Amino acid sequence: MNAPWPTVAIVGVGLVGGSIGRALLARGLAEKVIGVGRSRESLRRAKRTGAITDASLETTAVAEADLVVIATSVATIPELLEQVDAVVRPSTLITDAGSTKASIVAAWERGRKRHRGRFVGSHPLAGSHRRGPEASDPELFAGRVAIVTPAATTPANDVEAVASLWSSLGATVYVMNPREHDKLLAATSHAPHAIAAAIAASTPPAALPFTATGWRDTTRIAAGDAELWADILLDNAGPLAVALARIATVSERILTAIEAGDRRRLVKLLSNAKEVRDAVGS
Amino acid sequence: MNAPWPTVAIVGVGLVGGSIGRALLARGLAEKVIGVGRSRESLRRAKRTGAITDASLETTAVAEADLVVIATSVATIPELLEQVDAVVRPSTLITDAGSTKASIVAAWERGRKRHRGRFVGSHPLAGSHRRGPEASDPELFAGRVAIVTPAATTPANDVEAVASLWSSLGATVYVMNPREHDKLLAATSHAPHAIAAAIAASTPPAALPFTATGWRDTTRIAAGDAELWADILLDNAGPLAVALARIATVSERILTAIEAGDRRRLVKLLSNAKEVRDAVGS
Repeated sequence: MNAPWPTVAIVGVGLVGGSIGRALLARGLAEKVIGVGRSRESLRRAKRTGAITDASLETTAVAEADLVVIATSVATIPELLEQVDAVVRPSTLITDAGSTKASIVAAWERGRKRHRGRFVGSHPLAGSHRRGPEASDPELFAGRVAIVTPAATTPANDVEAVASLWSSLGATVYVMNPREHDKLLAATSHAPHAIAAAIAASTPPAALPFTATGWRDTTRIAAGDAELWADILLDNAGPLAVALARIATVSERILTAIEAGDRRRLVKLLSNAKEVRDAVGS
Repeated sequence: MNAPWPTVAIVGVGLVGGSIGRALLARGLAEKVIGVGRSRESLRRAKRTGAITDASLETTAVAEADLVVIATSVATIPELLEQVDAVVRPSTLITDAGSTKASIVAAWERGRKRHRGRFVGSHPLAGSHRRGPEASDPELFAGRVAIVTPAATTPANDVEAVASLWSSLGATVYVMNPREHDKLLAATSHAPHAIAAAIAASTPPAALPFTATGWRDTTRIAAGDAELWADILLDNAGPLAVALARIATVSERILTAIEAGDRRRLVKLLSNAKEVRDAVGS
């Protein structure tokens, strides 16, 4: 069997981009993976870990690719999409791996008529607070979820092609519209991130020696890259505010029950939370 | 060398009590460990895991112990302390492993003059969302922190004896007053617990398939036992409210920066959080 995407270009060879490259090569889904990065050093590291076969500092290197994946910070994706689109062959498939989708898809759609490539946004839910190609893992997407977010006018064939990329890397694929994606991720990722940061930053220095697994688990994602996360949160302000308000409401209910000494009510609230958490699994 | 506490009684043979028993026996620090539990079944399981050598359903079984450790839910500790004190030999050392300290120590102090035993409260920071003697681990306290919380009138010898218990199990011991303990733990444990529960309970069911490591880490402690945690939170309402307010303040600052599109401010807030989190380690 020939590789479905003989030549793939990956713009951004960090944890996610590097893992995509390694997964494609390990599974024989690509023969050539061109990494496009901002520094010779990161490209060298990506090559050393086996994430890419070729490297370039120029976005124009994506020209020969059958598939282009943009795996950079969300704030840079719309502009990179335009740069990629300007050089690819007509009808080359393009996707991204950004954590927000509405603004990226909307930006692409504004130029739909003049575009050469076919873009379908996606988001593999497989990040980590770790970074760089050294943290990459060809099995990063196995057993995980990937969300594909077509615009209203995206051809079904293109949606299927991008969905097949992620499912061939082992992910379970969901297709939904970009705004729905952003609402869901505000609840499951962006709001927890903001809260984890708030817990970490508000812990008095004198208390830090007395942190145990609870604090460490709860705040782990606050170790994520501040610039990357700032761009994600800024890009999803509306749904994030809604999700944070929902958390604040439940948190206030918990505190009200505590201050009223209402054990029955408090047990009920904590049991609700436990039920949800237990259903998700470790 | 003789065991420093030839006979130890442990009231409550769950994760923490079971781990204490196994740790004492594994290190030759006790020859006989009497487990006192509420059900034959839990005692049988504790014996099977090697946490105890003897079992009883009656608190009076602690009478012969050189050291008594109460490792039950915080709400039950004051009453159990009185029951234990009523039967121990004069000057028997008693401690507990409860997650709150002010009310437990205060309850003991109110009866100080009539007490036979010597009590010093403690709290090993080595819980888990897992439960029961099967989850116990003789190395649970190794490399962890244990806090010993004497009252103002507690003799230094007694403080040292209880401190030596925890350090002999591998913990780093801190001594502080019970109210200081409760303030610190409100920040590092109780408030994160309440928030984790709020995040889990407020996540819309439709969003649950789209949770990844961030949500899972942030909400993991919400899987803790609702009754146990209700008692902890109820017993530390004041400091908990302060800690929750501190978190809400930082969370609002983060949201304000996001809604204002103030990237510089947001990066600063997230960087502060990252700095704190990085300093604590994984």
